[in-house]
Amino acid sequence: MSRIPVAVLGATGTVGQKFLARLAGHPWFEVVQVAGSAERVGQRYGETVHWREPVPLSPEMAALECTTAEPGVAVRIVFSALDAAVAHDVEPRFAAVGALVVSNASAFRMDADVPLLIPEVNPDHLALLDGQRRRRGWTGGIITNPNCSTAVLVTALAPLHRRFGISRAVVATLQAASGAGYPGVPSLDLLDNVIPQIGGEEEKLEHETARLLGTLDAEAVAPAGITTSAMVHRVPVLDGHLISASLAFLEAPTPEAAMAALAAFRPPADVAALPSTPARPIEVDRRPDRPQPRLDRDRGNGMTVTVGRVRPCPVHQLRLVALGHNLVRGAAGAAIQNAELVAVREGWVTASG
Amino acid sequence: MSRIPVAVLGATGTVGQKFLARLAGHPWFEVVQVAGSAERVGQRYGETVHWREPVPLSPEMAALECTTAEPGVAVRIVFSALDAAVAHDVEPRFAAVGALVVSNASAFRMDADVPLLIPEVNPDHLALLDGQRRRRGWTGGIITNPNCSTAVLVTALAPLHRRFGISRAVVATLQAASGAGYPGVPSLDLLDNVIPQIGGEEEKLEHETARLLGTLDAEAVAPAGITTSAMVHRVPVLDGHLISASLAFLEAPTPEAAMAALAAFRPPADVAALPSTPARPIEVDRRPDRPQPRLDRDRGNGMTVTVGRVRPCPVHQLRLVALGHNLVRGAAGAAIQNAELVAVREGWVTASG
Amino acid sequence: MSRIPVAVLGATGTVGQKFLARLAGHPWFEVVQVAGSAERVGQRYGETVHWREPVPLSPEMAALECTTAEPGVAVRIVFSALDAAVAHDVEPRFAAVGALVVSNASAFRMDADVPLLIPEVNPDHLALLDGQRRRRGWTGGIITNPNCSTAVLVTALAPLHRRFGISRAVVATLQAASGAGYPGVPSLDLLDNVIPQIGGEEEKLEHETARLLGTLDAEAVAPAGITTSAMVHRVPVLDGHLISASLAFLEAPTPEAAMAALAAFRPPADVAALPSTPARPIEVDRRPDRPQPRLDRDRGNGMTVTVGRVRPCPVHQLRLVALGHNLVRGAAGAAIQNAELVAVREGWVTASG
Amino acid sequence: MSRIPVAVLGATGTVGQKFLARLAGHPWFEVVQVAGSAERVGQRYGETVHWREPVPLSPEMAALECTTAEPGVAVRIVFSALDAAVAHDVEPRFAAVGALVVSNASAFRMDADVPLLIPEVNPDHLALLDGQRRRRGWTGGIITNPNCSTAVLVTALAPLHRRFGISRAVVATLQAASGAGYPGVPSLDLLDNVIPQIGGEEEKLEHETARLLGTLDAEAVAPAGITTSAMVHRVPVLDGHLISASLAFLEAPTPEAAMAALAAFRPPADVAALPSTPARPIEVDRRPDRPQPRLDRDRGNGMTVTVGRVRPCPVHQLRLVALGHNLVRGAAGAAIQNAELVAVREGWVTASG
Repeated sequence: MSRIPVAVLGATGTVGQKFLARLAGHPWFEVVQVAGSAERVGQRYGETVHWREPVPLSPEMAALECTTAEPGVAVRIVFSALDAAVAHDVEPRFAAVGALVVSNASAFRMDADVPLLIPEVNPDHLALLDGQRRRRGWTGGIITNPNCSTAVLVTALAPLHRRFGISRAVVATLQAASGAGYPGVPSLDLLDNVIPQIGGEEEKLEHETARLLGTLDAEAVAPAGITTSAMVHRVPVLDGHLISASLAFLEAPTPEAAMAALAAFRPPADVAALPSTPARPIEVDRRPDRPQPRLDRDRGNGMTVTVGRVRPCPVHQLRLVALGHNLVRGAAGAAIQNAELVAVREGWVTASG
Repeated sequence: MSRIPVAVLGATGTVGQKFLARLAGHPWFEVVQVAGSAERVGQRYGETVHWREPVPLSPEMAALECTTAEPGVAVRIVFSALDAAVAHDVEPRFAAVGALVVSNASAFRMDADVPLLIPEVNPDHLALLDGQRRRRGWTGGIITNPNCSTAVLVTALAPLHRRFGISRAVVATLQAASGAGYPGVPSLDLLDNVIPQIGGEEEKLEHETARLLGTLDAEAVAPAGITTSAMVHRVPVLDGHLISASLAFLEAPTPEAAMAALAAFRPPADVAALPSTPARPIEVDRRPDRPQPRLDRDRGNGMTVTVGRVRPCPVHQLRLVALGHNLVRGAAGAAIQNAELVAVREGWVTASG
Repeated sequence: MSRIPVAVLGATGTVGQKFLARLAGHPWFEVVQVAGSAERVGQRYGETVHWREPVPLSPEMAALECTTAEPGVAVRIVFSALDAAVAHDVEPRFAAVGALVVSNASAFRMDADVPLLIPEVNPDHLALLDGQRRRRGWTGGIITNPNCSTAVLVTALAPLHRRFGISRAVVATLQAASGAGYPGVPSLDLLDNVIPQIGGEEEKLEHETARLLGTLDAEAVAPAGITTSAMVHRVPVLDGHLISASLAFLEAPTPEAAMAALAAFRPPADVAALPSTPARPIEVDRRPDRPQPRLDRDRGNGMTVTVGRVRPCPVHQLRLVALGHNLVRGAAGAAIQNAELVAVREGWVTASG
Repeated sequence: MSRIPVAVLGATGTVGQKFLARLAGHPWFEVVQVAGSAERVGQRYGETVHWREPVPLSPEMAALECTTAEPGVAVRIVFSALDAAVAHDVEPRFAAVGALVVSNASAFRMDADVPLLIPEVNPDHLALLDGQRRRRGWTGGIITNPNCSTAVLVTALAPLHRRFGISRAVVATLQAASGAGYPGVPSLDLLDNVIPQIGGEEEKLEHETARLLGTLDAEAVAPAGITTSAMVHRVPVLDGHLISASLAFLEAPTPEAAMAALAAFRPPADVAALPSTPARPIEVDRRPDRPQPRLDRDRGNGMTVTVGRVRPCPVHQLRLVALGHNLVRGAAGAAIQNAELVAVREGWVTASG
């Protein structure tokens, strides 16, 4: 099979680099376009990027010439690591000319006709794409993955919500520096310190959670009846968002029942077969001091969410801690998995590869 | 006035050193005894201690010879920085022979006749001391300060509870390394990492909060009707515990009303006049990224709790973040302030010094 | 005595803030002008600055209106925390109209007629100011303090050079994040990492050292015959530069003789009496694991350099480690001390204040 | 081929865990014995170990029962991660009964008849083993790898020494926390700090360097004529020792010639074919801010040493920075590679596997 040509927009940033690192050797996708900011256009990617991934940049990608973030190169899929404001202008132009934009940006996430997806959780929401194309007159389309902390939270909540019905979630996040990109958070702000603020993050957690766990009804998503309250904190950690939650349920599970539901969680067969789907989307760790960002963020090649400290909550019914890799499960890995989902469901490839 | 002779037990540990650093030059108290572990007995404190405070050790204290943690030296007040298990055996022996044990240990904190005090919050609970002496046949007594994270939380909650009645608190803590003492948390566990566990801490937060905010009724404290749920996390910060809370009230205040109550909080006049009481026990910081441990932990010489991010909570009524210095407001500073309270209320000194 | 009016240029940056923090309550100087970048001009300092010092900003300074970095306000002394390129243009304009520019910038440091000063080390170099004024036609003038790491190194080397004659120094520095200003080094670059590069720093260490230890000869400084080789490293430390040195001498001292010379080091009487001069410019710490940045950087109110690990060097004659606060001894504190030196030697104040 | 049975002594420590992580799936060796401290004997390794490697423990290893560190199990190779004092007693007992002890401990490193090896550098020193067996009456033997920082330094120096003859090396190390094992360095000592001391490390660097680069002469190693001066520093980094060096040569190379010699460095063919030998033992990185511990420590699966900042030294002839993974190139990886060397040279396996 010849691989599907893809572009990466915002290719030199933190998430953009993670896209390239994970797309190197991808069985279905081949990066043929990398787009960067104006001053990089025309330069070789390998020469203009300040490569910070711990794996070496592939020579093929290094040799690509940076383009503007505009359609022109023949690609079927466009991975977008653009800032929201730029994404708002740029992404529709690609969608209009037939590309599937798989976006990590927040620009269109909450639009009623734009799928906001976690393949293991709500792959059926992909069906919104039809109406999106019809209504907007696009031959391509836009699909999105959630905010990085929401991705971790909702992956952990999904099996609990299905079985027991979550009504309220009070969460506090401990988020890694890489979530702010590069240069991002100054070391003078983060060494020996915590910053109790990340712009816009609390609203995203509160709104995206209900949408992701909502039900597809005709051509719209009815949000789940979950009220979420979020307080976010930046901590001196490189990668890995940890989310500490207190949960109220319609039918309260015991901690054992909750852990059983988490451990038993499996996605639909075609999702399970995607190259980026980990063997276990959720791992329950019963050790009393886990999960920990540095030790657990790379599980399942960064796509597994680890849940621990599941125990009764004196105020609600359950407390737990969930941890995932913000740049993988929460960004580039999530978007690639979304693209894989489309590739299979639209018949561009067969799930067996 | 000649100063009151005091002892410090557990003098070489992290909290013990903070006691000595803060008692140097204290207007009322003079350290005449320092007790350490068996292998240090007979050595000069200055030679046996691995002094880690950023201020120099006073020559007078350095010259003290370490003793065992047993009565013998003529002291009126005994500051205890012992581990709970040791404190359980040792502290009563001092209380029995007439010393006022001012303990940072958890051994007796929840005993019905032992005052658990924050002078600005519940100085009236000191009255339990009479019954304690009568019942236990002690001429001295034991008074205690709360666990380090509880001290920060309850100082912040007290004015809100008084005005609006708190019914439920869901809290997540981000706690500093110094809370575990020395050697404490290995750097291999804490660099680029978070540990979602601190043994016993969640129970202490849940139980001590209701007790501290409870009302003295005859000779016992009736706990406040507050249900607290706590999840604790150790973060790569040296000093300063940050507590992120979601609060439900009997009468919900607006954020503005809550901030006004916090900012207006003043202790009774004799408490306000204690040497260790800061000008403002609580400071409200309206900047959207505050409080931060490194920038705010030393306010009020470490005794002020900073509250920020006061805003509506989608699940309960209010969210806020409180920060205080765990070794000062949460340990040595708190105990010294407790001793000052007794010294004034028992007439050993006059509040004007 | 009414205080001398002074300006601070670059007042909102890391060094600028340290200037204001240390000038609050200064016995001789009063800040009447604060200059910042164009977009801040006209705003109150307290409203435009992102204040990051752990001590509160003084209300008087907070109320000052930011100006451009141009003469206009009546000041006698101008503290410059400008970048070198800007300083090159701006500082002469102040010097031309009668102000003494006390600069932390490198723009004029190596000019033959500009004093590069450490008051305890080479106060006589101040005499260059006469020729500078004459030659340049200035009624004011420019004096400078060394680069932050050079300040620490040379303070430690000076007494050894005087007594034993240093011929070669091979140094490696471990420098704090605050040396790069704010935002400076991204946390993604510094958490769990070391960066073996700081632009221009090695050359400054190599050139400024010989100049500072040189001898004033008629109207020029003859550099000392010291060859310095420097390799610099940025480490995850907030404040405090540590310098690890191997030294060759004309007459090799024993470690004991070297420590004796270091401990005995005292500046001239009028320098010793300056408000910013610490009781001991150098402290020798014989503990085998000192100096350490966090524990020793604040000695002498940040102006003392701590020297430790003095021992024989198998290649040269002596190894030692020196540590000082880069923003104090290495920047703002140094400049203020330089201004104090001028104020005394020009008779603006008497050394007794 | 059936795999060679091996034991790991000190299996639960930091280096011991790294041994197990790297021996999982090794083509030649199979771990059949894990020895730990007395209280662990009889427990399953997987239950008693506080596993801290980021890769999961293999189920086969987890199921092994911990033994004492005594001979008894039939193994041909014994990997020792014991402390020096214990190693001194224990290792000879294994050597006496026919096992090849491949030790990371310093106990026998400097014994005249014990090979101290870096396979790419001095594989011929393995010949000392014959005399060792003859003299000590052992049927097995002991071979050792250098101290972790020496391993990094000497790998980088070897090609320069061969071509240009190094006479003097002044080095400063910036060493990671994992070099001290677990629990090792307290976080209170290392957050926002540097510790300029690591017990015994400077002497090891000074002595082992000359031995490793020495020449085998009949049955003894004549140390190279290199004088090394070392100052060590512990920095807040998890893994990766960075060594900053100033070098004097018999024939001074230009930086370009030095980089060419480093980049061209290749081990003998049979060493190059060992499973643990990286494609390039040394990589020269010309970027001005490299090598950096976090970005470069994992090159070559942790076995590659990265050299950068090669430039003229004003005092000697060359400055450079070398970086390697202390637990891999500096400990477990080095020992495994040593065992591979013996396995090939003694004909236990063929180099092709």
